Amino acid sequence: MEIELTTAQEISETSRQYNLHSWSSQGGLKPKVMLGGQGIYFWDGEGKRYYDMSSQLVNLNIGYGNKKVIKAIQDQAERLAYSSPSFAIDVRSQLAKMVIELAPDNMQKVFFTLGGADANENAIKIAKMVTGRYKIFSRYRSYHGATYGAANLTGEPRRYTSEPGISGFIKFFDPYVYRAPLPFASEEAATSYYLSQLREQIIYEGRDQVAAIFLESITGSNGVIIPPKGYMKGVREICDEFGIMMVCDEVMTGWGRTGEWFAVNNFDVKPDIITFAKGITCGYAPIGGVIVSKEIAQHFDNNFLYCGLTYSAHPLGCAAGIATLEYYKEAGLIKQAKERGVLLGKLLEDIKEKHACVGDVRYIGLFSAIELVKNKETKAPLVEYGIDPEQTMKKIIGKLVAKGFYTYSHENSIIVAPPLIITEEELENAMAIMDEVLSDVDEMVKTK
Amino acid sequence: MEIELTTAQEISETSRQYNLHSWSSQGGLKPKVMLGGQGIYFWDGEGKRYYDMSSQLVNLNIGYGNKKVIKAIQDQAERLAYSSPSFAIDVRSQLAKMVIELAPDNMQKVFFTLGGADANENAIKIAKMVTGRYKIFSRYRSYHGATYGAANLTGEPRRYTSEPGISGFIKFFDPYVYRAPLPFASEEAATSYYLSQLREQIIYEGRDQVAAIFLESITGSNGVIIPPKGYMKGVREICDEFGIMMVCDEVMTGWGRTGEWFAVNNFDVKPDIITFAKGITCGYAPIGGVIVSKEIAQHFDNNFLYCGLTYSAHPLGCAAGIATLEYYKEAGLIKQAKERGVLLGKLLEDIKEKHACVGDVRYIGLFSAIELVKNKETKAPLVEYGIDPEQTMKKIIGKLVAKGFYTYSHENSIIVAPPLIITEEELENAMAIMDEVLSDVDEMVKTK
Repeated sequence: MEIELTTAQEISETSRQYNLHSWSSQGGLKPKVMLGGQGIYFWDGEGKRYYDMSSQLVNLNIGYGNKKVIKAIQDQAERLAYSSPSFAIDVRSQLAKMVIELAPDNMQKVFFTLGGADANENAIKIAKMVTGRYKIFSRYRSYHGATYGAANLTGEPRRYTSEPGISGFIKFFDPYVYRAPLPFASEEAATSYYLSQLREQIIYEGRDQVAAIFLESITGSNGVIIPPKGYMKGVREICDEFGIMMVCDEVMTGWGRTGEWFAVNNFDVKPDIITFAKGITCGYAPIGGVIVSKEIAQHFDNNFLYCGLTYSAHPLGCAAGIATLEYYKEAGLIKQAKERGVLLGKLLEDIKEKHACVGDVRYIGLFSAIELVKNKETKAPLVEYGIDPEQTMKKIIGKLVAKGFYTYSHENSIIVAPPLIITEEELENAMAIMDEVLSDVDEMVKTK
Repeated sequence: MEIELTTAQEISETSRQYNLHSWSSQGGLKPKVMLGGQGIYFWDGEGKRYYDMSSQLVNLNIGYGNKKVIKAIQDQAERLAYSSPSFAIDVRSQLAKMVIELAPDNMQKVFFTLGGADANENAIKIAKMVTGRYKIFSRYRSYHGATYGAANLTGEPRRYTSEPGISGFIKFFDPYVYRAPLPFASEEAATSYYLSQLREQIIYEGRDQVAAIFLESITGSNGVIIPPKGYMKGVREICDEFGIMMVCDEVMTGWGRTGEWFAVNNFDVKPDIITFAKGITCGYAPIGGVIVSKEIAQHFDNNFLYCGLTYSAHPLGCAAGIATLEYYKEAGLIKQAKERGVLLGKLLEDIKEKHACVGDVRYIGLFSAIELVKNKETKAPLVEYGIDPEQTMKKIIGKLVAKGFYTYSHENSIIVAPPLIITEEELENAMAIMDEVLSDVDEMVKTK
């Protein structure tokens, strides 16, 4: 292979000319060039170095340039780069076994996909096939992917271009306690409220009509919303009561992000189906999948599984997955994420206390969000939902990035989710940049 | 990475225990093991060697073990294994440029996905965004993928589990001349009939309501149905008349399969959108995409593109794509596919003439199907559509595979689509196996 484009300017200009870029208007784009990365850092076309404080798209848990995973991909490319999914191959069998051994103990089999969106697509179909029902519940503050099925699960505006929607996809409200319409006396009261609302909605939709409830174990892009105590267990009970499949989307939260292999472990809950992607290979090679319980696996012993894709369980993804999971274990990264999370939580609480613009901070493991407000008392969001004409959030992210803190925002929240390999010193140094930028935002808020 | 499973039996047994396998009931499965491959051959767990006469899933155009593509993947894994799609990186820019240079000359930009299904998903959204309309036409005998949007484009039974369907997805009949309900006086008469039916259906659905017509340039899985003379140009004219996007799915047919870079080149037609996957990397690393015209590209200069996925334009896929396209050129494979296609056509015509069970053979380049019948005169299909209780087709494929001819069937057709690198001698030897097996089928047909 010959690399024809060698200067950053050529790379960016050619991209502007020939690539359609995600989630943007293309006219004014000057795509930033990435030339390389190592550890928690990457550098751009000018050689400027950044802390990757979002792990790219909350997937690069092991950081850049991990030699073990690189070597696994290189070896597998040589051994067997492609085999159609109907064949058993060593890495395909082995990764499936490893996934099940790490998953909650009610789980039995894996259907491998390429990413999170098609994992959720296949989970929808599986839940429908198993239950013989067609209604699918999911939440407003959610993102499950951009293909039609996954986008119809999604509650936020990225759903709209996949509408008119699919019959039977129904939304309910998530336990976003910080912005609840009424104040709750306690966390337990919040849980009780949200669960009884959900239960009532299911009854109105038809208790025997609902195939599945989809929920991110912890809402990701839409602001790291952590369910109140007892909520997840309550959802599990509702599912059991009505024979509904509980499907937990762990695309962002799986594989150590929250300090556990899966975020559901934090809540001691066993879903019927878990979907995953991102952290299993940290993006080094694409793979995602659907983990199903013993009961579901048994169902398909005698029933046809109407799922398939050319690159299901791609050999490179399987090899990268095995190496990544081995690396998590060898480096003790899951435990480390929990420990670093304690420090991150402390730094975030300090930030919340110090800054007028910070309404709420939410964190678990190395997964966190800072929610910005105009006014701490009224909780008025810094930008209105779905409306940011002055591009306030884009400007704030611009300030962070200019100072070498790379991340992204969604609505009025900034995501902070660094690679799990981050050291305490790196975390403190990076968060000092955040502190500086939030001081500027405090000034903006004062004048509003 | 440590490979734990070393014997074929362990690999198969572990797969049976932990992998959910596509498009099957899992109970009786004994997954065949693939240990390796070279050129047009692969070998199974017992070391038995097979002609890969379907190029796996019509994607392995360059065969197994291509050193150039393997090296490109290995190098890219080392250089930069992952970067989020918002960044410009050298291989991402370069592959987009190469794709546009090879595409019809009305094309301008590429949105990269992971495979064919999500390419079609994004093409649907793009066509809706550009036209502001929501109705999507596609054909009954078609397969476009298994995610919700792609499955709702799909006409054949693999659609059903993605129903209740999406509003506004409308099916029309394809120009399957061999099984037309009425005989046509000529190929031109057939074209005229199918086009006028399509035009009338569009008018009844609302000329200003239809965003796109999706069609495989040549119907793939559903029997390699080649459009009659003038059909594709006629569809183009209907699209122009009503401002409808013509979307050609070239997931199977693109990248040399038909003896041209894209199958539309055979018909001298320029669609508005082309979707692709498979042959661009031959499966060595996953990538797919949506190619859009200058007009569509310009639309998104000032309009938001609501498309995105974590692994859009994955670096490994981009590197593999560059190397594969370079290899096609260096090895003269596109021209060679056309030449070998002449031989394949001759062999297929001989087979049709010789065997009572062969109703029709259809071929273009190295893309072909053999359609089996109970009776050549009445054209009664060997198995009824959607019904094969005696697993007749499975048994026939089993005979082929037992003799070392690997391929698959769909309904009553057998796909023959070997790697483009196949030699004349290999093609003749492989087709001699087919000839043998079809003699057995002739016996079955006699007794029916």
